[in-house]
Amino acid sequence: MSIPLFWIVPAASVLALFFAFFFFRKMMAESEGTETMKKIAQHVRTGAMAYLKQQYKIVAIVFAVLTALFAIMAYLGFQNGWVWFAFLTGGFFSALAGFFGMKTATHASARTANAARNSLNAGLQVAFRSGAVMGLVVVGLALLDISLWFIVLNVFVNEANTAHKLAMITTTMLTFGMGASTQALFARVGGGIYTKAADVGADLVGKVEAGIPEDDPRNPATIADNVGDNVGDVAGMGADLYESYAGSILATAALGAAAFAANTSVQLKAVLAPMTIAAVGTILSIIGIFAVRTKEDASQKQLLKALGRGINLSSILIVILSAVIIHVLGLPNPWGVWMAIVFGLLTGWLIGKETEYFTSEAYPPTRNIADNANTGPATVIIAGIGTGMLSTAFPVLTIVVGTILAFLSAAGWPVGQELMRPEVVSSGLYGIGIAAVGMLSTLGITLATDAYGPIADNAGGNAEMSHLGPEVRKRTDALDSLGNTTAATGKGFAIGSAALTALALLASYVEELKIGLHRLPEKMAEFESFLGKSLDSATLMDFMEYYNVTLMNPKVLLGMFIGSMMAFVFCGLTMNAVGRAAASMVEEVRRQFREIKGIMEGETEPDYASCVAISTRGAQRAMMVPSLLAIAAPIAMGLVFGVSGVMGLLTGGLAAGFVLAVFMANAGGAWDNAKKYIESGAHGGKGSPAHKAAVTGDTVGDPFKDTSGPSLNILIKLMSMVSIVMAGLTVAWSLL
Amino acid sequence: MSIPLFWIVPAASVLALFFAFFFFRKMMAESEGTETMKKIAQHVRTGAMAYLKQQYKIVAIVFAVLTALFAIMAYLGFQNGWVWFAFLTGGFFSALAGFFGMKTATHASARTANAARNSLNAGLQVAFRSGAVMGLVVVGLALLDISLWFIVLNVFVNEANTAHKLAMITTTMLTFGMGASTQALFARVGGGIYTKAADVGADLVGKVEAGIPEDDPRNPATIADNVGDNVGDVAGMGADLYESYAGSILATAALGAAAFAANTSVQLKAVLAPMTIAAVGTILSIIGIFAVRTKEDASQKQLLKALGRGINLSSILIVILSAVIIHVLGLPNPWGVWMAIVFGLLTGWLIGKETEYFTSEAYPPTRNIADNANTGPATVIIAGIGTGMLSTAFPVLTIVVGTILAFLSAAGWPVGQELMRPEVVSSGLYGIGIAAVGMLSTLGITLATDAYGPIADNAGGNAEMSHLGPEVRKRTDALDSLGNTTAATGKGFAIGSAALTALALLASYVEELKIGLHRLPEKMAEFESFLGKSLDSATLMDFMEYYNVTLMNPKVLLGMFIGSMMAFVFCGLTMNAVGRAAASMVEEVRRQFREIKGIMEGETEPDYASCVAISTRGAQRAMMVPSLLAIAAPIAMGLVFGVSGVMGLLTGGLAAGFVLAVFMANAGGAWDNAKKYIESGAHGGKGSPAHKAAVTGDTVGDPFKDTSGPSLNILIKLMSMVSIVMAGLTVAWSLL
Repeated sequence: MSIPLFWIVPAASVLALFFAFFFFRKMMAESEGTETMKKIAQHVRTGAMAYLKQQYKIVAIVFAVLTALFAIMAYLGFQNGWVWFAFLTGGFFSALAGFFGMKTATHASARTANAARNSLNAGLQVAFRSGAVMGLVVVGLALLDISLWFIVLNVFVNEANTAHKLAMITTTMLTFGMGASTQALFARVGGGIYTKAADVGADLVGKVEAGIPEDDPRNPATIADNVGDNVGDVAGMGADLYESYAGSILATAALGAAAFAANTSVQLKAVLAPMTIAAVGTILSIIGIFAVRTKEDASQKQLLKALGRGINLSSILIVILSAVIIHVLGLPNPWGVWMAIVFGLLTGWLIGKETEYFTSEAYPPTRNIADNANTGPATVIIAGIGTGMLSTAFPVLTIVVGTILAFLSAAGWPVGQELMRPEVVSSGLYGIGIAAVGMLSTLGITLATDAYGPIADNAGGNAEMSHLGPEVRKRTDALDSLGNTTAATGKGFAIGSAALTALALLASYVEELKIGLHRLPEKMAEFESFLGKSLDSATLMDFMEYYNVTLMNPKVLLGMFIGSMMAFVFCGLTMNAVGRAAASMVEEVRRQFREIKGIMEGETEPDYASCVAISTRGAQRAMMVPSLLAIAAPIAMGLVFGVSGVMGLLTGGLAAGFVLAVFMANAGGAWDNAKKYIESGAHGGKGSPAHKAAVTGDTVGDPFKDTSGPSLNILIKLMSMVSIVMAGLTVAWSLL
Repeated sequence: MSIPLFWIVPAASVLALFFAFFFFRKMMAESEGTETMKKIAQHVRTGAMAYLKQQYKIVAIVFAVLTALFAIMAYLGFQNGWVWFAFLTGGFFSALAGFFGMKTATHASARTANAARNSLNAGLQVAFRSGAVMGLVVVGLALLDISLWFIVLNVFVNEANTAHKLAMITTTMLTFGMGASTQALFARVGGGIYTKAADVGADLVGKVEAGIPEDDPRNPATIADNVGDNVGDVAGMGADLYESYAGSILATAALGAAAFAANTSVQLKAVLAPMTIAAVGTILSIIGIFAVRTKEDASQKQLLKALGRGINLSSILIVILSAVIIHVLGLPNPWGVWMAIVFGLLTGWLIGKETEYFTSEAYPPTRNIADNANTGPATVIIAGIGTGMLSTAFPVLTIVVGTILAFLSAAGWPVGQELMRPEVVSSGLYGIGIAAVGMLSTLGITLATDAYGPIADNAGGNAEMSHLGPEVRKRTDALDSLGNTTAATGKGFAIGSAALTALALLASYVEELKIGLHRLPEKMAEFESFLGKSLDSATLMDFMEYYNVTLMNPKVLLGMFIGSMMAFVFCGLTMNAVGRAAASMVEEVRRQFREIKGIMEGETEPDYASCVAISTRGAQRAMMVPSLLAIAAPIAMGLVFGVSGVMGLLTGGLAAGFVLAVFMANAGGAWDNAKKYIESGAHGGKGSPAHKAAVTGDTVGDPFKDTSGPSLNILIKLMSMVSIVMAGLTVAWSLL
């Protein structure tokens, strides 16, 4: 702990949380507008908090069971005694990030709508500041948890060998990543089902059948829809990105501890590098957030430019400062590691641009889907699925090129057979991890520009329900669509970092095997006699040899089949859950229109509560099976097929899941914007047959892009995290 | 060539072709019915042949280019001089199988319709016999090509070392598998795009907008639709199964040559086993076909039973006789190998049952999709995608269990570390191959029960257009739906064998690396000094070690990403092709209804030719890119990432492609039957809003189940075949 640079991590954490509080207070100081606006905001707030409470109750039960399991495993000697506690804090902080984000968002919507009554710019200021709260809370809490655990474990872990100690500390800290992932998966799946059931139900009856606008107060599902935006797009996203951010830092720290175990002083530097880069990135994010300023009469284009300026400033500064950090730390091959960070940032940026190309109405792919609306819903769906599948080529190739460059540069550009020397592989894998950290280092500001979208969306809902003038709705829509463009970049970073982090976690898994073997003297002796060297000097490649993790091992290949299947089954379960809940919602809204007199005339208030109840029930029932499957699959695989099967499962799940996630996100995004393009007047505009067909596409795309797709990113990492935590057991026993 | 049992292979081939001719003559002896029926059949026949000719022209160009490439590679010493010629014959025979199948089908449709005027049973006899022609032509031609090449290469290959000679013969024969796969991919993709463009276009305007029945002669796309059934479902399927059948036999023979290279007499037996089992299975198929007899007044249920009896008889007999064959051949571990065959058959049967469960209207999943039609097209699509994704769990788990059992039984039930002994792995992989051969051994009859479906479908079209009474249409529909049930079994076998064959091909790839190294003295020396043993004594595992084909190699992992992406991009391209051509078709049909007076009144004949032209153009333009991509990807991967990248590509493509194929086939099948279920009267029946929604689902499902899904099975194998043929180049040079 001699390196003072570490203290920048808790400092950045405190700073981030302080500014989050500052922005929160500034937002709260704004007026919530008219009495109706306040009433509606209160409705949504209460509904959202009620749901979140319900969800946390269920998650708490799951956490209690898993914690007990870990405690038993620690008792039996398969794990160290810190695991269960680290797991709990990860889940707790992830939940907290979601909770604060949602609290802010539900307070901000009416305030944003009210500010938008004055000007677009005023609306942006409120929405963006609230988004900044979310961004800073996520990174602040993650850095806080990381710093605390790093300090605590440094003090309490009893281990004379420094190299071992750091390995134990970093792998134990990974467990808190598993807690975060588990909580995030529940939040994304539960929130995603909730919001899309309401959204689909509201749209199908309201927009398509009854022909009333979105968020019309006569639609019984409106409140549920707005609650859904908060629990899904805000709380779900917060938990999700908390997981990504913490996961990438923790995985890289663990890889650093493993890669440089031979040299204790370098090892500590390699562990600290991801943390300090993230900490500096956080400070730069705060600077970037303050740089987002516009003139009072700014146009939409100028607003977009202002947002871009903030992000670009932070990104350029992190490129420069990470070179400084690496040199100050004194990492070996500093420029190689620095280039890995740059490749990571470039990869994320490129994927964002590609996402924008494939999902923005300004480009041919989405226009083509809109064209297909002229021939009905079937061709819209076919075109969307076709385009979405095709679009996977670009992010995948970008990730492949980015990863290989990050690997090679961090490994010092090895060639030929040299590329596979164990120490080359270790430092290359560290490069992949650090690229992910680089990509996410400025999450504070990218998340701010991402999170204000749903806030603006909700503000629009509030404006509609409060019968504010159409110009207010127009302004909130403009903010929302502004958010969509910057959100594409955010999505690129989220997807790209998920792939890189999952690759890094794979290497951490192998490291965890080593620790597992250390606990089992008999197995360790077997291992050492097989390889003819000591466990401590065993390289990643030695583990591959001992456990036969090659592509000629049927257990690896069949594990890959199951991993690939897991991604599809997981999506199938979540799609079906949305479908089921949405169908109940449709029936309920139809029933209310039929049975409650005077809704359409605006004389009677519809029964909002029954729709909220349908979404809540749908989400709670359906989130258990997919989430538990994600936890159970790697455990079961380890018990039956052993280490090689687990690695097959993880890689198969990663390869298929990543591509499937991109497909679903892009198809969903493109359908959404094709519909918006038609609503803006193309192909006959609102109410035309083409519009009706496009709404069908958008509806199908809703669970694609907001439930199944984003959950996949978490699934991939959670399966790795579970395998890591369970490695001790897998090493000890498996059927085949 | 001393083992006389080999001669059963050419004998079975001749027998199959003889009976194919016999059934063809019997079918041709039937009457084609009224003048109108003849005229319409002639229309469809001419259209289908015209398209096939066009397609073969394009394929011929591709083959010319590839053959030239192989000739150059042989000249440069990367391949032996037989490769290009074997490649050509594979393509030629595959095309021939499709051509004969289609010729039969186009002659049979009017005859089936005419026979159905008398009774259901009479219709079945004609349709089933025509299906039998297809089944027997496919297996007969495959066995012919295999016998000829085996004899020719045995005579001409100059190699003193018998073990080497057999390895060279079997791997050279694999090249003819590549020819078959290439042709099959073009046939499936081109035919699939053709038929679904016509089908989707005809349905969307005819059924949904104009409200006229399927195959109504007033619909301008009707002829194109019926032509499409022939070029897609018949010629495409014929080429496809020719490829599967030949591929599984050839891959297993190559594995046998590799696994038992140490003992020349066992080696020959292991090579002959798959061929003789397939030959005996063919003879049993002929017996099974004759066993399909019914009373003149048989009910639909009795007909189904009769078909089942034929298949079951052949299957039970092959289980018994394969035990005899294996013992007569004198293979080591005979009962273990026999059990692998039984596991293969059981796996195929189980997947068939699972397919039926998930796609038949008799079971909850499809009923549930139909229920979702009450809430519109969006929920139908969501439910279909969700259910389709979910359904992948069962075939994947079945394949995993079946494969591991086939592996373990053929390897003599090894345990623990023993499971990875090189000779254990080799014989286990041979077991996987032989399981695939067992699964496909009775293809003669399973294909017969599969192929008569489209014939009955076309007969229905002919009946409709010839204004025969509704009872005829009802009978052909009954035959078609009868076919759907047996086709589920056929699909199970096709999907299951594709996965197993692809796994076997993976091992053949490694064997081909050995042959490639033999040609490069310098590389061979490097290899031998690295491993400290001679190339000839190197095991599969040694290759894994030398080329670092482990899951810690980034080239393997990134190769997997690209493989997984390939499956999605391929589907995206084919989906888009169908979407584009279908949209043109919709516009054209709408135009004709609008501009040509008197179509609706039946006074003017629509312009069928322009619709045929749209489908032809759509198919021809769009089939090039996906097909060439499948060939180019493994070559490019080899040049950039080398052997480890190629193996990553193949396994990633296999794991994701297999699951994606099951998803698409099941979702498409379930949508189809959900629509049929509603048409049979549920949820308001034909013309209800639920029906309209279900038609949208069916339309989206059309390219899923008949274009993209089935092409994926070929894609997976073609990529492996290309890698095998190009292995010499990959071994010689790669960038990283």
